[in-house]
Amino acid sequence: MKCLFGYLCIITLFILVIYGTVLAAENSGTTLAALTDVQKYNRAIHIMAMLLVGFGFLMVFVKKYGRSALTATYLLVSVSIPLYFLKESLFSTVNSVDVIDKLILAEFAAASLLICAGAVLGRLKMGQYILLGVLFVPFYAFNEWIVLNGGLGLISGKVIDTGGSIVIHAFGAIFGMCVAVSMTTAKEYATPIECDDTSDRFSLLGSMVLWVFWPSFCAALVAPADVPRTAVNVILALCGSTIATYFASIKMRGKISAADIANATLAGGVAIGSTCDLALPGTAFIVGISAGGLSTFGFAIIQSWLTNVTRRVDTCGVLYLHGLPGLLGGIAALFIASGINIAAQLTGILVTMVIAAASGLVSGKMLAQFGRKLEPYLDEEEFCE
Amino acid sequence: MKCLFGYLCIITLFILVIYGTVLAAENSGTTLAALTDVQKYNRAIHIMAMLLVGFGFLMVFVKKYGRSALTATYLLVSVSIPLYFLKESLFSTVNSVDVIDKLILAEFAAASLLICAGAVLGRLKMGQYILLGVLFVPFYAFNEWIVLNGGLGLISGKVIDTGGSIVIHAFGAIFGMCVAVSMTTAKEYATPIECDDTSDRFSLLGSMVLWVFWPSFCAALVAPADVPRTAVNVILALCGSTIATYFASIKMRGKISAADIANATLAGGVAIGSTCDLALPGTAFIVGISAGGLSTFGFAIIQSWLTNVTRRVDTCGVLYLHGLPGLLGGIAALFIASGINIAAQLTGILVTMVIAAASGLVSGKMLAQFGRKLEPYLDEEEFCE
Amino acid sequence: MKCLFGYLCIITLFILVIYGTVLAAENSGTTLAALTDVQKYNRAIHIMAMLLVGFGFLMVFVKKYGRSALTATYLLVSVSIPLYFLKESLFSTVNSVDVIDKLILAEFAAASLLICAGAVLGRLKMGQYILLGVLFVPFYAFNEWIVLNGGLGLISGKVIDTGGSIVIHAFGAIFGMCVAVSMTTAKEYATPIECDDTSDRFSLLGSMVLWVFWPSFCAALVAPADVPRTAVNVILALCGSTIATYFASIKMRGKISAADIANATLAGGVAIGSTCDLALPGTAFIVGISAGGLSTFGFAIIQSWLTNVTRRVDTCGVLYLHGLPGLLGGIAALFIASGINIAAQLTGILVTMVIAAASGLVSGKMLAQFGRKLEPYLDEEEFCE
Repeated sequence: MKCLFGYLCIITLFILVIYGTVLAAENSGTTLAALTDVQKYNRAIHIMAMLLVGFGFLMVFVKKYGRSALTATYLLVSVSIPLYFLKESLFSTVNSVDVIDKLILAEFAAASLLICAGAVLGRLKMGQYILLGVLFVPFYAFNEWIVLNGGLGLISGKVIDTGGSIVIHAFGAIFGMCVAVSMTTAKEYATPIECDDTSDRFSLLGSMVLWVFWPSFCAALVAPADVPRTAVNVILALCGSTIATYFASIKMRGKISAADIANATLAGGVAIGSTCDLALPGTAFIVGISAGGLSTFGFAIIQSWLTNVTRRVDTCGVLYLHGLPGLLGGIAALFIASGINIAAQLTGILVTMVIAAASGLVSGKMLAQFGRKLEPYLDEEEFCE
Repeated sequence: MKCLFGYLCIITLFILVIYGTVLAAENSGTTLAALTDVQKYNRAIHIMAMLLVGFGFLMVFVKKYGRSALTATYLLVSVSIPLYFLKESLFSTVNSVDVIDKLILAEFAAASLLICAGAVLGRLKMGQYILLGVLFVPFYAFNEWIVLNGGLGLISGKVIDTGGSIVIHAFGAIFGMCVAVSMTTAKEYATPIECDDTSDRFSLLGSMVLWVFWPSFCAALVAPADVPRTAVNVILALCGSTIATYFASIKMRGKISAADIANATLAGGVAIGSTCDLALPGTAFIVGISAGGLSTFGFAIIQSWLTNVTRRVDTCGVLYLHGLPGLLGGIAALFIASGINIAAQLTGILVTMVIAAASGLVSGKMLAQFGRKLEPYLDEEEFCE
Repeated sequence: MKCLFGYLCIITLFILVIYGTVLAAENSGTTLAALTDVQKYNRAIHIMAMLLVGFGFLMVFVKKYGRSALTATYLLVSVSIPLYFLKESLFSTVNSVDVIDKLILAEFAAASLLICAGAVLGRLKMGQYILLGVLFVPFYAFNEWIVLNGGLGLISGKVIDTGGSIVIHAFGAIFGMCVAVSMTTAKEYATPIECDDTSDRFSLLGSMVLWVFWPSFCAALVAPADVPRTAVNVILALCGSTIATYFASIKMRGKISAADIANATLAGGVAIGSTCDLALPGTAFIVGISAGGLSTFGFAIIQSWLTNVTRRVDTCGVLYLHGLPGLLGGIAALFIASGINIAAQLTGILVTMVIAAASGLVSGKMLAQFGRKLEPYLDEEEFCE
């Protein structure tokens, strides 16, 4: 049954992508435009490094679930990118968007999906990650269409979210949280998530790869003349959150937590997303410091409290790395972006939260129909040897 | 004696590269051309990441041979690139090819050599990897000259192989298989190759680095305007093989194999090589699915059968990751590339197979003259501490 | 007290960077210039990969100090980059340098700081790495100003040092050595530094990431037309040092040392720095071979001798990877660069050595005032779990 679903899934993708072939007809025209596109391509490759090596290894912190986490990463990316392309091909006017822009938008969807999957990591069977991807992408695209492209006419005005603090990070985190709410079992709640020296070092590798390429994520679709400034803002925000994480971790826990260092250091990148091309460098640094402090507070204080209260597990703490800092970034835009449409920005944030929550709850219920891992956070059940 | 050979090897390289200095005289001319070259340079760096981090760590799956695998990778790259440059300097008209194109061609040779070395990994002494490189590069360049540049007038017509499915992947794999055939010992055949959690995670790291930068490998020498489309094709092919690998692995083995996930996921990149700039995206996705399925079939079914029958060991299974998918890609071009010269394409494939097999067998015999590791797949023999 | 210092440090940074916001006003003008800047941006990202993943993981060779080494790397980078920006904003005429050039210069400072920190790795408390960064950057910038920008009128003529053999590598190594001299304790001298299979493989990962992106480090600020040639020189130098390291390691130790392979392989990149855009490829290869041999000689022979004689510990052996090869590179320029101002070059090297040594000694004394780790080379003291 599981396999049948899988094969159907492949075949569907396969047939639909065929329809998508029209995009091949596009041609980049003049050389200067072509060079600009190749530069976008470079950033697209950087983002791919974030998706696979970055998100993948960040999740390897679960000691006995490393092979599964990496395999799940592979599958989530490989399902979501063709699916998003499909949507672009079916629902967009041909040539309305450049093929390289489509690729980058598809990568954004994959990033949001990986964030979402982090919340339930270790508790889905491998095939269910694929299903999660199939469920997630349409909801993600629907929200993106409403919030950024004026879909349904719900939001009248521009929502400021260049690097996706709202539609990528907050959306993915809230969706994931709600999937976790729908389907966390008592056994999963009771099972501790183990780490060791080696899983921590792998996790820090993932973290660093994300840090390094984050400027390319935020500047992916920015005009060439704005790329350097955007990059500097993102780097200063990341420096700010890294420094803040260290001090906050020591202050709140007494000692440094490797998990804080691997995660909250990146909160500056999440929060500067919305305004990465608009903020002044000093402001970016402040946004980063705030986000790092907030995120560490989330991991050190809120997480254990919320886990106990709700008896629900957010495996990777995506609420604290992507959720809260993402919302912080979306709201910070109100103070940073001059001439911002405040109503549009707030509606955009609200709509994103509602769609993410509702679709996450529904998706969680659906996923739960397809059975569960017997033993959470363990490779053995599904891997040979 | 071993050391003497090494020093001679260095000195030879050294003297010959001096002759190669003429290439420094080249100048990139106009700014637009210079910018285009810098973009090629970026892809050349991406390929270098594949060669060292990608191929290197993919081979770390052999648990107790990690330091050796990485050292061998370093040496194979460091010998083959200057050697190929040398050949370019001695046998090509000056300025006939841009210096950055030469670098990329040299990296292609290094990639093919690393594939070849994968077949006998763990069974050569470190100095023999260097010797393998010295033997391999001239044969590789000879085949490349015949198949792609009309050498000897053997092939009258264009062979379609932009990303090297035939001349890089299939050539390297067949050469390596034949080296293995020439020199596998009974002891090596009997020794199991051990993995563990950590070696698997390192291997998946290598795999992901290859996946991420594969578009730059295929698009390395493609014109700027064609880069985005080529990249999308390669990414869709990789998505296809990744999804197919998961389902095929489950189907054929009952459980997922981390080795399948680390290797067969990449088969889409191998197979789309020949037609990466020509295929439609939907076709690329199909090619990827087919290659992933074929490669997993190779690892799960053919490998153990062939190993038993021939009593020969292909350490990394390069026949199944690079050999069969490479041939698949070369043949797929017959259906994908419009106006293809069928005779030329088939002759190109055949010539590549013959040259690779013959030169591999000869090279294996020569390598065997220089002694062997006493204990296969172990670092200790050659590393201190 | 330690925390107080930290918070003051953040607040100072924070206020000062605000002043730095003027740089946001810059605008890249025409498209061709913008495209050139985006290409520099790409190299800046490559350098960031070297700083975090490269230097970070290279230092993970200390088995039980991996989480600390990576956290320290994060903090050193996050402190030095905003600090250097600050200096640029306060002491440079606005718009005199492009924002992307500033970023790259800041990354150079961070690289030099990481080299410096390698000498005392495992013996500072985490907060002291931050303090080390705060002390280091002004001295580094002061030396850079004197040697490369004619500060104080001390050097009349151009010092050849495109890729920073002198001002980045030798400066950082000598500074670090002198910090180590000021503050190595008897206990630290007596404590062995342990490695294992896994720490070695992580260290080789860092090494390979440095190797791969080294051409972007050297070519970061080079004109587009010179990038390909520079890259080829750097790659040939690295190939040369890699081959030489293998033979020298075997020759001098009887067996291969994984530490030699992880470190001395990079010496070619260090040494070609000064003349990376001027050397002929054959010369670059020779420089690389010499540097690899010299560096391996340092690790295999000088290190144990010097450690015993001085009873001081250089944890990562930065003198042998960055110090000696850096000086070699600076001196090699006398023979390689035509029309070089010999007096200026020699004065530049001398001034760098003097400033680095003096400021390193002073900084070491200051750092020692802030207490010390009780147990060197161990994560446990400062990390939870």
